[in-house]
Amino acid sequence: MSQYCFGIDVGGTTVKIGLFSSEGTVLEKWEIPTRKENDGSNIIPDVANAVLKKMEEKKIEKDAVIGVGIGVPGAVDDAGVVHRAVNLGWDVIDIHHELGNLLQMPVKAANDANVAALGEMWRGGGEGCLNMVLATIGTGVGGGIIVDGKMITGATGAGGEIGHIHLVDDEPDTCGCGNHGCLEQYASATGIVRIAKRKLAATQSDSSLRKDLENGTLSAKAVFDAVKAGDTVACEIAEEFGSYLGKGLAAIAGVVNPEVFVLGGGVSKAGEILCTYVSKYYQKYVFHASKEAQFKLAKLGNDAGIYGAAKLILD
Amino acid sequence: MSQYCFGIDVGGTTVKIGLFSSEGTVLEKWEIPTRKENDGSNIIPDVANAVLKKMEEKKIEKDAVIGVGIGVPGAVDDAGVVHRAVNLGWDVIDIHHELGNLLQMPVKAANDANVAALGEMWRGGGEGCLNMVLATIGTGVGGGIIVDGKMITGATGAGGEIGHIHLVDDEPDTCGCGNHGCLEQYASATGIVRIAKRKLAATQSDSSLRKDLENGTLSAKAVFDAVKAGDTVACEIAEEFGSYLGKGLAAIAGVVNPEVFVLGGGVSKAGEILCTYVSKYYQKYVFHASKEAQFKLAKLGNDAGIYGAAKLILD
Repeated sequence: MSQYCFGIDVGGTTVKIGLFSSEGTVLEKWEIPTRKENDGSNIIPDVANAVLKKMEEKKIEKDAVIGVGIGVPGAVDDAGVVHRAVNLGWDVIDIHHELGNLLQMPVKAANDANVAALGEMWRGGGEGCLNMVLATIGTGVGGGIIVDGKMITGATGAGGEIGHIHLVDDEPDTCGCGNHGCLEQYASATGIVRIAKRKLAATQSDSSLRKDLENGTLSAKAVFDAVKAGDTVACEIAEEFGSYLGKGLAAIAGVVNPEVFVLGGGVSKAGEILCTYVSKYYQKYVFHASKEAQFKLAKLGNDAGIYGAAKLILD
Repeated sequence: MSQYCFGIDVGGTTVKIGLFSSEGTVLEKWEIPTRKENDGSNIIPDVANAVLKKMEEKKIEKDAVIGVGIGVPGAVDDAGVVHRAVNLGWDVIDIHHELGNLLQMPVKAANDANVAALGEMWRGGGEGCLNMVLATIGTGVGGGIIVDGKMITGATGAGGEIGHIHLVDDEPDTCGCGNHGCLEQYASATGIVRIAKRKLAATQSDSSLRKDLENGTLSAKAVFDAVKAGDTVACEIAEEFGSYLGKGLAAIAGVVNPEVFVLGGGVSKAGEILCTYVSKYYQKYVFHASKEAQFKLAKLGNDAGIYGAAKLILD
């Protein structure tokens, strides 16, 4: 008899769902809206209905389903209890119990960033590695740490919250977390724009980015496009970004000594050039025993969460 | 029938050995010299003889011994192969095979710093916690990371090498590792003396440490003794030390989010005051989700290694 599982990634706007074979092939994937009204009380029933409907449609019996893995944007403890998922309106929700009751199947829940890291280890940029760090470089900097093939959750679910590692003592701007000088203030899409604005104000050099600044189109993408076109100021901005992220990832290597760093998030669309800038400074700052770590781009994009959630239940 | 195990800690001068009950009580502990001549080729046979002799003396049958755990000062992979233990004269040695052959018992080997962390988690400062970071503050800064009750070894055995996390960009002095600005350059016994010398040269203030500097007795212990006596300059030195170590441990929390930091090594003999200085700056730099982490002193001293080695084989 064929065996199946579901991998589910609950986001602030949509819930992504994947039906997987027990070998880990995605057979079908789709989305449903995330209904956040009434403290998000519809989300779990909506997920259960979506799963049950698909099973009916595909004529999949309950005993052919190994279980349901689910990633949510909040701290999740090992018992599957979410402690405040503000983007969903949730306070404290016992997912294993609530979703398990509705489905009468095994459920395994975890934090979405950690689940995405598990997905990238399994079928993405870290495939073949059991010790991996995913750095997600988007509006902010997130992360997920995989050691011996398992996610690091941490004591309060904050394992892999690498964006708030302190890097700079005299940063005047305040980070979203309230501190000053966090990695995220330099190594995110927002951080790159901040570095670019400072650099453009401090130099007289010509740069295509001045037009972007005037037009309000200055972005991380614009910076890396200009880097590829050979713009000198843009290259200096990329060097500075690389030095911060390289330094942050070198500190992480001093803790978990991974085989591979996988770079994901919107900024990773810049391509291999991102790895070049980051690994250059990583090599400068890292302890020699961790110099061999590789830098790779994430491969699964928005599907990392459903893959990781499936892996969570298959493990 | 009673069950036993051995916990062994191979150091550069002596090998510490503990005979444990299967419940984890140390029944007897003793030391043998570490014979480093001939590329350390006697060390493994000496260890085997010591174990067999003790079994004979105590009339312990082979099938009453669960196994032998052993910590060594070098990178050890999961198969028990040591890759260069320079302090022992070893190049590549398969401990599981060599010691296992001599004893005809299960053997489990790991890096000594990681094993010490396991010991402190099991019976020391981290007792009752499964997520712990041991920071060993001696001549250098070492460490061991425990996640869900297991050591983090890392891809090349450099998990927990926290002493070489980069902290300062413009440090002129070179660290033992060849880099500049490593945590160890500020947060070790040697680092405290370095900070003290700089501080004494930069200020005119009176301090009992000036006499120590003249007499060649300036040490981390002298600094913390002066702190306890209310010496203002010594307090400034301790603040600076605390800021570096607090910042380094906050970065580590951004990766593994531990329940507790255990401070060990020679400098930890300063007592609770050490935790006070370090946690003050940890709180300043750490991401809010990790603010609850506790700071405790190591309890097992030089016995951490034999306890951790016993736990290694009991797990």
